[in-house]
Amino acid sequence: MKIVALAGGVGGAKLADGFAEILSPEDLTIVVNTGDDFEHLGLYISPDLDTVCYTLAGIASPETGWGRADETWHFMENLERLGGSTWFRLGDKDLATHLERTRLLKAGQSLSEITAHFCTAWGVGPTVSPMSDQAVRTVVLSDEGELAFQEYFVARRCSPHVSGFRFEGIEAALPAPGVLDAIYEAEAIIICPSNPWVSIDPILKVPGILSAVKEKVVVAVSPIIGGKAVKGPAARMYKELGIAPSAQAVAEHYGDLLAGFVIDSIDRELAKDLGLRALVTDTIMTRKEDRIRLGKEVLSFTKDL
Amino acid sequence: MKIVALAGGVGGAKLADGFAEILSPEDLTIVVNTGDDFEHLGLYISPDLDTVCYTLAGIASPETGWGRADETWHFMENLERLGGSTWFRLGDKDLATHLERTRLLKAGQSLSEITAHFCTAWGVGPTVSPMSDQAVRTVVLSDEGELAFQEYFVARRCSPHVSGFRFEGIEAALPAPGVLDAIYEAEAIIICPSNPWVSIDPILKVPGILSAVKEKVVVAVSPIIGGKAVKGPAARMYKELGIAPSAQAVAEHYGDLLAGFVIDSIDRELAKDLGLRALVTDTIMTRKEDRIRLGKEVLSFTKDL
Repeated sequence: MKIVALAGGVGGAKLADGFAEILSPEDLTIVVNTGDDFEHLGLYISPDLDTVCYTLAGIASPETGWGRADETWHFMENLERLGGSTWFRLGDKDLATHLERTRLLKAGQSLSEITAHFCTAWGVGPTVSPMSDQAVRTVVLSDEGELAFQEYFVARRCSPHVSGFRFEGIEAALPAPGVLDAIYEAEAIIICPSNPWVSIDPILKVPGILSAVKEKVVVAVSPIIGGKAVKGPAARMYKELGIAPSAQAVAEHYGDLLAGFVIDSIDRELAKDLGLRALVTDTIMTRKEDRIRLGKEVLSFTKDL
Repeated sequence: MKIVALAGGVGGAKLADGFAEILSPEDLTIVVNTGDDFEHLGLYISPDLDTVCYTLAGIASPETGWGRADETWHFMENLERLGGSTWFRLGDKDLATHLERTRLLKAGQSLSEITAHFCTAWGVGPTVSPMSDQAVRTVVLSDEGELAFQEYFVARRCSPHVSGFRFEGIEAALPAPGVLDAIYEAEAIIICPSNPWVSIDPILKVPGILSAVKEKVVVAVSPIIGGKAVKGPAARMYKELGIAPSAQAVAEHYGDLLAGFVIDSIDRELAKDLGLRALVTDTIMTRKEDRIRLGKEVLSFTKDL
């Protein structure tokens, strides 16, 4: 089965990793949000791309889900001593990714070319692609004004009250090379359990992607479980936007794009009110086996739609 | 006693460290070669400045003399995995210096401002100053054509046959702020045991520095001991330029600039032929005590001139 998975950070990366264990590399393309990308200390940082690649390479930190396993922080400690900026933590191993990517971007390579090159180096089989090679920047509209995503998310720890989002540069962005082809060739599109507002929406809003996705069987896995997000500010965002956070709210967010929806066993009673085919199963991916089991169930559910 | 020390890398840094242990911070200014500076992986790297600062801060690697003590190489290992450039080794701790300096330079600060700021952070008391805030680049003329200094020194491990040197940009360079004042106020100028061709000459050739130095009592410490350099390519350069490497050749290089010269005990018999006042003593600085003892002897010798 040939699929395209749309993914943001940790949750999306875990399910994508499950698919990677099941499918042949040529049957899986993971299109990743780059709205969180930013420049910091002169480095181009692409948090979701790195999380997906590190996870699939088996080198992600098992404690945090992002960053590198067995990371060291000697760079950061010494930067702090020099009075440098430390609100965004960069590990010694992780730094190699940012520095080399920045160098290659300056040398004229595209983000998708660099990602492909890194994936080869890391032994990642499936295609991992940024949603676009053009800069799209998620801006959080809040009671404290407009905030760049990482400022809201990391520096301010999601404390400003969210009123909406804006994806700067998205009108001029093109789907990265191969993304539309992969969607066209796919039997189904899986929306991973990532934040609908700031991980999946930016991907779908890159001109051309939504209309290509609409032609396909689309299945989403709810990132909201029992009214809460496993990780990240999705539930908080729903509340601040005046919507009760629930799997149902996620389904409504995607609307008639979905042919099927995957919800956690804890939300079992919501299944009948969704108005679409639902798979009810355990969706929290604590261990590697959980990713593979959920991946298999989602693929089998999707095949049956 | 108020002095200005002119220094390149490891040998110069060690003697400067000896002076720093003896003199009050306000009585010591170390003017450092920046002809070896270069841009690498998008970072501004200033090897001699870093060696001097790390040494005075007590954080230099005791094994190599350059780089940081207890350094780790996780960045480098991961850069190598990505196919990045690894000919110039950058440690995790050291990276903080390069990244923060590059960021501050891009933000409009000068190299001398940044060096002063870093010295405060590292607890370095004496003034450490780049020779100039303008870019001067040592180019090695060789049988393989012109080579940027680090390319000759690190990438090619000094294997090309040297025929001369060129200091790109030196005509337009100005002494860094405070350098001429420090020389003017100094009772003596000490030329540290650094490479005359590529560490001291660039400093002296910054317009204005040589004529200011000439007004002072100048003492040099020979970097050539028993016909050999303790570290680095000085002896090899002498040979390739057709001059037998010796303490005498160093004295001749500086010519009538010198009022006194410090040579190693091993070169004792050269003292009488130098035609200038000489201090004969042990000049190899293996331990911290050697630096202090040599520093004291050099200062006392200089005072007596």
